[in-house]
Amino acid sequence: MIRSDGRRPDQLREVRLTPNAQVFAEGSVMIETGQTRVLCSASVEDGVPQFLRGAGRGWVTAEYAMLPRATVTRSPREGRGRGPRGRTQEIQRLIGRSLRAAVDMEGLGERTITVDCDVLQADGGTRTAAITGAYVALHQALTTLKTRNDLSVMPIRCAVAATSVGVVAGRVLLDLSYEEDYRAEVDFNVVMTDQGEYVEVQGTAEGGAFSRGVLDQVLDLAQSGISQLLQDQKRVIDSM
Amino acid sequence: MIRSDGRRPDQLREVRLTPNAQVFAEGSVMIETGQTRVLCSASVEDGVPQFLRGAGRGWVTAEYAMLPRATVTRSPREGRGRGPRGRTQEIQRLIGRSLRAAVDMEGLGERTITVDCDVLQADGGTRTAAITGAYVALHQALTTLKTRNDLSVMPIRCAVAATSVGVVAGRVLLDLSYEEDYRAEVDFNVVMTDQGEYVEVQGTAEGGAFSRGVLDQVLDLAQSGISQLLQDQKRVIDSM
Amino acid sequence: MIRSDGRRPDQLREVRLTPNAQVFAEGSVMIETGQTRVLCSASVEDGVPQFLRGAGRGWVTAEYAMLPRATVTRSPREGRGRGPRGRTQEIQRLIGRSLRAAVDMEGLGERTITVDCDVLQADGGTRTAAITGAYVALHQALTTLKTRNDLSVMPIRCAVAATSVGVVAGRVLLDLSYEEDYRAEVDFNVVMTDQGEYVEVQGTAEGGAFSRGVLDQVLDLAQSGISQLLQDQKRVIDSM
Amino acid sequence: MIRSDGRRPDQLREVRLTPNAQVFAEGSVMIETGQTRVLCSASVEDGVPQFLRGAGRGWVTAEYAMLPRATVTRSPREGRGRGPRGRTQEIQRLIGRSLRAAVDMEGLGERTITVDCDVLQADGGTRTAAITGAYVALHQALTTLKTRNDLSVMPIRCAVAATSVGVVAGRVLLDLSYEEDYRAEVDFNVVMTDQGEYVEVQGTAEGGAFSRGVLDQVLDLAQSGISQLLQDQKRVIDSM
Amino acid sequence: MIRSDGRRPDQLREVRLTPNAQVFAEGSVMIETGQTRVLCSASVEDGVPQFLRGAGRGWVTAEYAMLPRATVTRSPREGRGRGPRGRTQEIQRLIGRSLRAAVDMEGLGERTITVDCDVLQADGGTRTAAITGAYVALHQALTTLKTRNDLSVMPIRCAVAATSVGVVAGRVLLDLSYEEDYRAEVDFNVVMTDQGEYVEVQGTAEGGAFSRGVLDQVLDLAQSGISQLLQDQKRVIDSM
Amino acid sequence: MIRSDGRRPDQLREVRLTPNAQVFAEGSVMIETGQTRVLCSASVEDGVPQFLRGAGRGWVTAEYAMLPRATVTRSPREGRGRGPRGRTQEIQRLIGRSLRAAVDMEGLGERTITVDCDVLQADGGTRTAAITGAYVALHQALTTLKTRNDLSVMPIRCAVAATSVGVVAGRVLLDLSYEEDYRAEVDFNVVMTDQGEYVEVQGTAEGGAFSRGVLDQVLDLAQSGISQLLQDQKRVIDSM
Repeated sequence: MIRSDGRRPDQLREVRLTPNAQVFAEGSVMIETGQTRVLCSASVEDGVPQFLRGAGRGWVTAEYAMLPRATVTRSPREGRGRGPRGRTQEIQRLIGRSLRAAVDMEGLGERTITVDCDVLQADGGTRTAAITGAYVALHQALTTLKTRNDLSVMPIRCAVAATSVGVVAGRVLLDLSYEEDYRAEVDFNVVMTDQGEYVEVQGTAEGGAFSRGVLDQVLDLAQSGISQLLQDQKRVIDSM
Repeated sequence: MIRSDGRRPDQLREVRLTPNAQVFAEGSVMIETGQTRVLCSASVEDGVPQFLRGAGRGWVTAEYAMLPRATVTRSPREGRGRGPRGRTQEIQRLIGRSLRAAVDMEGLGERTITVDCDVLQADGGTRTAAITGAYVALHQALTTLKTRNDLSVMPIRCAVAATSVGVVAGRVLLDLSYEEDYRAEVDFNVVMTDQGEYVEVQGTAEGGAFSRGVLDQVLDLAQSGISQLLQDQKRVIDSM
Repeated sequence: MIRSDGRRPDQLREVRLTPNAQVFAEGSVMIETGQTRVLCSASVEDGVPQFLRGAGRGWVTAEYAMLPRATVTRSPREGRGRGPRGRTQEIQRLIGRSLRAAVDMEGLGERTITVDCDVLQADGGTRTAAITGAYVALHQALTTLKTRNDLSVMPIRCAVAATSVGVVAGRVLLDLSYEEDYRAEVDFNVVMTDQGEYVEVQGTAEGGAFSRGVLDQVLDLAQSGISQLLQDQKRVIDSM
Repeated sequence: MIRSDGRRPDQLREVRLTPNAQVFAEGSVMIETGQTRVLCSASVEDGVPQFLRGAGRGWVTAEYAMLPRATVTRSPREGRGRGPRGRTQEIQRLIGRSLRAAVDMEGLGERTITVDCDVLQADGGTRTAAITGAYVALHQALTTLKTRNDLSVMPIRCAVAATSVGVVAGRVLLDLSYEEDYRAEVDFNVVMTDQGEYVEVQGTAEGGAFSRGVLDQVLDLAQSGISQLLQDQKRVIDSM
Repeated sequence: MIRSDGRRPDQLREVRLTPNAQVFAEGSVMIETGQTRVLCSASVEDGVPQFLRGAGRGWVTAEYAMLPRATVTRSPREGRGRGPRGRTQEIQRLIGRSLRAAVDMEGLGERTITVDCDVLQADGGTRTAAITGAYVALHQALTTLKTRNDLSVMPIRCAVAATSVGVVAGRVLLDLSYEEDYRAEVDFNVVMTDQGEYVEVQGTAEGGAFSRGVLDQVLDLAQSGISQLLQDQKRVIDSM
Repeated sequence: MIRSDGRRPDQLREVRLTPNAQVFAEGSVMIETGQTRVLCSASVEDGVPQFLRGAGRGWVTAEYAMLPRATVTRSPREGRGRGPRGRTQEIQRLIGRSLRAAVDMEGLGERTITVDCDVLQADGGTRTAAITGAYVALHQALTTLKTRNDLSVMPIRCAVAATSVGVVAGRVLLDLSYEEDYRAEVDFNVVMTDQGEYVEVQGTAEGGAFSRGVLDQVLDLAQSGISQLLQDQKRVIDSM
């Protein structure tokens, strides 16, 4: 047996998407993948940031944070010091770009949607879980706008979902848990659309390097995992 | 009918205490009172802050925060700017003092327990719900220490719980919802022990003043509400 | 003899209110209670904070700070680091709320009065001295506005004054000095109007709890002390 | 003609590596690629960050910044406000990881090498130019240590260099200038070793998505560009 | 008549030095020059900053701040935002350097004296008044140490005092008030010892320039003013 | 021989002024004096700061910073913590005042010119080199405005240049290197115009004092050095 929780190398952890996790939000979902739990809520505000004003286009952005005891040992509450850490900023920029690939900004009009991704429990893959959940919250928020007749057409170009793939002890594994991620030699995060195209590919060798052959295996595994996640998203969206 | 949700003036909202809300914490509970939801987790660390070192006594502290979309409109994520707001600091100091009343610091020894109170949904009474929930998380963390034989005796002096009482349109009401709190002329937070004594009494007239007679009614109502909350705490602690 | 300075349990320290402590301010008073000295100055500015604009109402706010060597040992100058400490914010919010109870905001019109309370010397009771002094500075600033014909009627609803009461070694004592405060088991700050009503009641048990009987004694003592302070305020205001 | 400066799609801009750009540093190089100019200097300090102490291993980290008038319009000087921006943190984390792939940390011993990459002029590709230049500065610093007999063996595992590839108007182009980067639909940064392996692959679709076929073309072009950069590095290192 | 308050060009404003302005400090004086009032207190602490440790020498430093309503219109409380302003830092560095000229650091031993200069009222010349007052507070603190037998010899090398001189409408004037300072074309601050030597000479032309002849007149006037201030200091020190 | 680099006491280090050091800036020059290298770039923006709006006058300001490895040992990158240090603020205020003496603000109109002075290498005299170089960059920026017909007349009142003079081991020396500056008993920075007048005279005794005779020698030496620098500036300006 290769993985501590008995999964096959190409097997995702169990995914659960629970809608309406924060009742006041225009869109909200709790995503759980294994022990990782991320609360994703989409908030709609009129207007756009300065650099877009008057262009007739909307904006989608994301914020990401972790509760202090989401992890095995407590981490100091971020931002009680001096602004979010580099890692946090990197992750929320990734989530924001991924969501913007999904939305037709002209169709959205001069509105800003902020998707907050708060990690309640962290067992690896929090940034990719956040993207997968955030898309569902975003979709629900757009549906809310359409139901209120603030939009006549859903400004969705495609669905997006994400997963991680890593190389651990020379084996390419899908959807790493924290314990696997910690030991990984290579770590990829892949974001794809439901048209089978890539939005982001981020691969890092932790203190080493990887061949093109490994890269190809990683992309194959990512694609198979993301296909399942896109179906999970669709199922919960259809049921809402 | 006096209250928008049909409650009697002396009636608490329904309370739910769900243990093990964050699996990695030494103690953790989700408290829900009506639509208010606060995740309370107690983390144990060896050592104490500078000012207590070498005194052979422990320390209990609390942090409080609200997710951006806990509220009807999104609030900016605190601490992405310049440290917690005054209101936040005031609340977390109140929670910390309340919990310290419950603990025998000599018995705890040179350990620090930090109780994080994160508001997932806010409909009034978040600080008093945080105290009521935090006591349960703290109790569970101490039980964990005892189970691990890190403590031989539970260093608990008493249980503490809290509620709010307010004067709305001249009527004294127990456990205000956000909509009631917003309209209140007088706003009290009361923290009591299971020996029927007060740990904190904080009463504020919002732009007015109140008589000693009103103060007496407020204290009566607070006491009756807190008795029920102490029973709820006991029930969930006994079941854990 | 119970108290180190020979006072009876129900006796205030000597109070001195010196007007015009900062000559450029619209209102200004130095309040001394024993060795505690607080410089209170009221500044009037046109306009109100964002959240009140266009409502035709005024705003009163307070800031509180302590000089580094107000205390027995030097404290680092606050705010050279990262914004005021929690304690400071709690105190200035208390002063602000207390003063707002005294003012008719419609009568004030779209003006902001900021009362700065700077502690030059600290021997206990700085926050209650600040409230008692700040009311006098505020009253003088309003008189200045009326003298300039910027106001036709004084927008005062009531006078406010404050004192502390504590339980030290089981005895309920009025107006604690630093040395008494340090040893107190229970610590109350009470703010009252000249109509005999309460604006704020804040009682804290430092690591213990107190009974309803004690609470009643505390409130009796506070009322008697505040009556005298209200007379001291009236005397200085009448003389100005 | 496809590119505004007349280059072929697979053609790098002219590269210049000038050693000893800051005379006090253990290693220092100015890298120019077209109009982009980055000053890279490696500083050696004894000791390692907290999390590595006592492990007998070294650490390599990077900082990245841009002078205010490196760009066509002046940007506010970063860090005069509230810490580096997200983009800056992301870039300096990337540079640091890339350099760590090149170094044998056991061989380095308990030393920290900080490579400062300061952009004097920015015309696209600053982060990849920084990596390519930083490797040379790092190599020189290690040579300095060896010359001083602080090291007996050069702790180098491989050389690293980096370039960007983008898709502009449907064409895959090597080494984007600012004007090309601004219009790019897809933007990749690729870091490789002189053993032909990948250290980082970061590809982003700006508001769209890209196919696996495009990804393959991008990687081919990156590899050919990086081969040339590795030769440029080798030439300047051999001459030093 | 040249000056709005009727002074001759070479005339100081009236100076008052009141000792023991903050009772808890080792040394403390209130200095008043005209309407300018600065509270100077010297605090002694064991130990020295990092860069001096183990050298057997002491350190003297100063902090400077202005109360919000020291001035004609209220200034925002400094440091509630982001650290002291440039002007404040410049002034406190000047005060610190001036005081260090007066002290024999070997004689002081490994102690730090911090002199806090808090401006209660500002009518021009606050930084030079601060220096003149700070010297007296410092002297008193050293006397306190000697009285306690912590020092056997007073580690004083010389007295220091300071004044301002400016050019207003072409006339060279001693000790500018705020109204004069505001209109000055040239502004000098001069710090001298009781041996007739200079510690600091800082002259600035506000949007113009000045000749060597003017500079000579300025220095003559400064010397005559500082002689008087040194006598005032001596008188109060002798009386303490 | 008195000076480590063999210079006479009244001899400047070799100066080099290289224009167009940052190609995108309206004016830019690299100044080198010995091993000190400062990159000075002038950026023009429409509009003026708040306090000048509507007055029809322009504004000139400066920013100063040092690269981490400009110095013999690496300094932490400023502003990654909490805003510029006191020394930095003092220097950039000095540069700004010096440049404003050179400019006719009415002639400039409602524009702001920001001159960035970035120290690439520091071997003493960085602030005076920055002033000397900044004037050239400023002049070039104004020429750019005139060439674009944004100005009809050059709004220059005079040229400004600066140098340092110090007393080292009792000898008065012109243009101190870092090693000399470190040992200096007295340290002057002098800024003069090409009409032979002073803009700034800043003299500091480091832990001592200096006589009027020394001050006179210092000013003589400064004047002779600045004359040469003004010629160097003129030569490069004429050649541009």
